[in-house]
Amino acid sequence: MTKDFGKLALQKHKELKGKIGVALKDNLDSRDQLSTYYTPGVAAVSSYVAENPKSAREYTWLNNSVAVVSDGSAVLGLGNIGPYGALPVMEGKSMLFKHFADIDAVPVVLDVHTADEIVSTVRAIAPSYGGINLEDIAAPLCFEVEERLKGELKIPVFHDDQHGTAIVVLAGLINAMKVVGKTLKDCRIAVVGAGAAGTAIMKLLYLYAQPEILAVDSKGIVSAHRSDLNSEKTKLLDYTNPHDVDGSLHDALKGADIFIGVSKAGLLTPEMVKTMAKDPVIFAMANPTPEIMPEDAHKAGVAVMATGRSDFPNQVNNALAFPGIFRGALDNKVTAITDQHKIAAAEVLSKLVEKPDATQIIPSVLDERLVPEIAKVIV
Amino acid sequence: MTKDFGKLALQKHKELKGKIGVALKDNLDSRDQLSTYYTPGVAAVSSYVAENPKSAREYTWLNNSVAVVSDGSAVLGLGNIGPYGALPVMEGKSMLFKHFADIDAVPVVLDVHTADEIVSTVRAIAPSYGGINLEDIAAPLCFEVEERLKGELKIPVFHDDQHGTAIVVLAGLINAMKVVGKTLKDCRIAVVGAGAAGTAIMKLLYLYAQPEILAVDSKGIVSAHRSDLNSEKTKLLDYTNPHDVDGSLHDALKGADIFIGVSKAGLLTPEMVKTMAKDPVIFAMANPTPEIMPEDAHKAGVAVMATGRSDFPNQVNNALAFPGIFRGALDNKVTAITDQHKIAAAEVLSKLVEKPDATQIIPSVLDERLVPEIAKVIV
Repeated sequence: MTKDFGKLALQKHKELKGKIGVALKDNLDSRDQLSTYYTPGVAAVSSYVAENPKSAREYTWLNNSVAVVSDGSAVLGLGNIGPYGALPVMEGKSMLFKHFADIDAVPVVLDVHTADEIVSTVRAIAPSYGGINLEDIAAPLCFEVEERLKGELKIPVFHDDQHGTAIVVLAGLINAMKVVGKTLKDCRIAVVGAGAAGTAIMKLLYLYAQPEILAVDSKGIVSAHRSDLNSEKTKLLDYTNPHDVDGSLHDALKGADIFIGVSKAGLLTPEMVKTMAKDPVIFAMANPTPEIMPEDAHKAGVAVMATGRSDFPNQVNNALAFPGIFRGALDNKVTAITDQHKIAAAEVLSKLVEKPDATQIIPSVLDERLVPEIAKVIV
Repeated sequence: MTKDFGKLALQKHKELKGKIGVALKDNLDSRDQLSTYYTPGVAAVSSYVAENPKSAREYTWLNNSVAVVSDGSAVLGLGNIGPYGALPVMEGKSMLFKHFADIDAVPVVLDVHTADEIVSTVRAIAPSYGGINLEDIAAPLCFEVEERLKGELKIPVFHDDQHGTAIVVLAGLINAMKVVGKTLKDCRIAVVGAGAAGTAIMKLLYLYAQPEILAVDSKGIVSAHRSDLNSEKTKLLDYTNPHDVDGSLHDALKGADIFIGVSKAGLLTPEMVKTMAKDPVIFAMANPTPEIMPEDAHKAGVAVMATGRSDFPNQVNNALAFPGIFRGALDNKVTAITDQHKIAAAEVLSKLVEKPDATQIIPSVLDERLVPEIAKVIV
């Protein structure tokens, strides 16, 4: 990074005392306005909404409000830093919602950390929002929390760390395949990091093209012979490791077409890249330092490279996906984000790059077509 | 009412699709701004706040955010209409917070209705806010919920239906005493309605001046001989009914100096007023129609009259108190609103009326001195 954004961030956050506030849609300068928006007038609105609960979307902020919910258990690369540490990130996410999609999102950081408690809390406050964006909740807890909330609530629930990342990765891979002239379903893919993002990426890639996927965690390839797998990792075997192989990261990479890393800085060496298939595609998304730096990757023969960083080409940035997804869900009264929505969003994203090449397989986060085009397919 | 505010409210709420939204304190037009307010820069802020949780107030919206929390069990005069029905009121309350005190308040309506569930939910989301305003929660549940939350949280928790009303009533009575030349501690006061507001009014009046108070509910005077009292009503006997009398509303009114009604339209007749002491003071706060209309009250000899309505003199309006109270609590890092704060706020309110007379014992809600003057005493 050329600039010290950490220092700048500390300065600006302190100067502004936080980043978001509340805006009023009309003023309250007169007694008549007070009587219209509060008592006695509001009683007519409350009575009407109580009798017609679906009309709440028409008369309240429900048509445009999203809670950005985190228990602070997996914040950025910082780990389990708790709700106060999470708050600046959730407030930042709320900014992104407003800036990119004009959605009124507010941070909700939780002082509870079990699935039961998180689910009951979010269920209890759910009537306050038009959608729930789960954020920075550690795996495997996040899977259970999201599944249960999706089952219980009639508003969209979306764990962005999982699905936002997966959608952008799929979009990037669709275009990377055009650049290297391969077909996704014929590729072997090593996914390193089997947490929230890694798991969601594998699920979505499998759903889309059934490629051969090897999941790799800190102990090596996830296989049926391992005795240390939790239930979420055991489930990975339903759609990864079809030939039931064992081995290390090195073994997984030999002959692989695609490396997808959501792991840690420097994990991938040029020597390992050289053992991959011809024209390898590398998504090195560890933050802030990728699994391999683009310069080293290209020297080792990588054909297409993506990272999580804005200062390199092809940034895998969740902000490419979630604003349009929630915009579409809110506007089209979609009550659940399905796998089909995720694939449709990835296809829209990939098509926004007219002529994919090694330096551009993913659209810019500043592309103004993103939100309206994605929103159209969330129906 | 001259205007049909209900009709106007339905029109405006539908036109605006709710009344509040989110505002950003800076824009996100450049990649540098994205990197400052979100990743990678925000990581430095999150790390710092996680290590120094108290600094969250300096770096996030916590210094200015309030949750307006309701389970929808006692919304205005509409009763238990649930969270969706409550939402327009809580959004309206959020507007008042912003308009009067520049506080960023957001509605949180709950789909849970027991004290345990409400307390655990609010406790779980508490790290997201600088204060909790409880609203429209039915008595006696509201007492337990507020007490438990005050005990468990280190941010101000304030049930406005109770204390906002009590503060304004005390302020009004301080000035009414000047008008009629009586002393509050020597008065006999009949308080009709022993719900959230009535109970809080009695507690605060007793704390302030130890007058003789009779609590009256639908069964008559609350006395030790009654077998139908719940635990909250039994507690009223600690500071009401010192002579242990029984009887009806009529009995309570005979010779009383002050009538305080938080009950229902038309409950107080001119004939009943005529049985009161000389120069009676009437606070008839049933909404939207008071216990007695001012014209009828004055004909029956009432000296000073207050209602809950903006179209009569002396409106008892919670918006006189809560904006300044929360402004002061947030600015002065007050972690609990005490009885002393409530009395201090009432005294400030009463002093804002320079020369009290029958037509003005309570300041106007549009008085710009309200918030800064009250905030000064919440320390």
